[in-house]
Amino acid sequence: MKIKLLLSALLMITCLAGFSQEKQSRKAKKNSSAVSEKGLIKVSVMYPFAEGKTFDMQYYETKHMPMVAGFLGSNLVKYTIEKGTASGIPNTPLPFMAIGCFYVKDLAAYQAAIGPNRDAIRADFPNYTNVSPVILVSEVIK
Amino acid sequence: MKIKLLLSALLMITCLAGFSQEKQSRKAKKNSSAVSEKGLIKVSVMYPFAEGKTFDMQYYETKHMPMVAGFLGSNLVKYTIEKGTASGIPNTPLPFMAIGCFYVKDLAAYQAAIGPNRDAIRADFPNYTNVSPVILVSEVIK
Repeated sequence: MKIKLLLSALLMITCLAGFSQEKQSRKAKKNSSAVSEKGLIKVSVMYPFAEGKTFDMQYYETKHMPMVAGFLGSNLVKYTIEKGTASGIPNTPLPFMAIGCFYVKDLAAYQAAIGPNRDAIRADFPNYTNVSPVILVSEVIK
Repeated sequence: MKIKLLLSALLMITCLAGFSQEKQSRKAKKNSSAVSEKGLIKVSVMYPFAEGKTFDMQYYETKHMPMVAGFLGSNLVKYTIEKGTASGIPNTPLPFMAIGCFYVKDLAAYQAAIGPNRDAIRADFPNYTNVSPVILVSEVIK
């Protein structure tokens, strides 16, 4: 009788210890992935601001970006969207109205996925903007 | 005897079920925090490429960015560094050699922290580059 009770208690302690360890390792993984995409390739599509240029953020966020992201498959780690609000240097114009970024594992795979869909992507531009984007390919350092 | 065994088995099942649920909820939380800094203010310091312009990434990563990050205190959520490698549009020059970004909770607090240190920050520029940066303030949409 006592042995059974002891075994039950032991089982419970082992189980809870495993539970707590799992919790800590998840926490560590979560923090490291939240602060850095180090080593990934980042493709930034930047829409310059100029007088008379327009940008429909709602269309971009709900239609255009999900469409392009859909072409990229499992090579895409995440994508981001930002809305330019001001220049950080006084008395200079806003540099970009909006920037969309794709974080991918492999540049060649990105190019292979975009290539056959380039016309569809470009044909969608007039639905949300009248400016041609600047595109930067970069390596995430930190 | 049989009741004790049954209780042990029940305890183990309950414990494992809790464990598995915790695992799933961690996973969901991890994914959501890794993919978005939604709502934060992003200050991007962008170094344009041009013939004869230079950029010392090692100094920037190990000295300049940690110094500026140190001025921002708890308002700073994270900062990132990327190295421009190519233009994404064929036959056009590299738009930026490097970009450093600060993700902060509050723009006024950012400006209040940078203001008194602006001279120190600018005085450090020649240690790693001979180009003046473009600075974009933006709002993280996704």
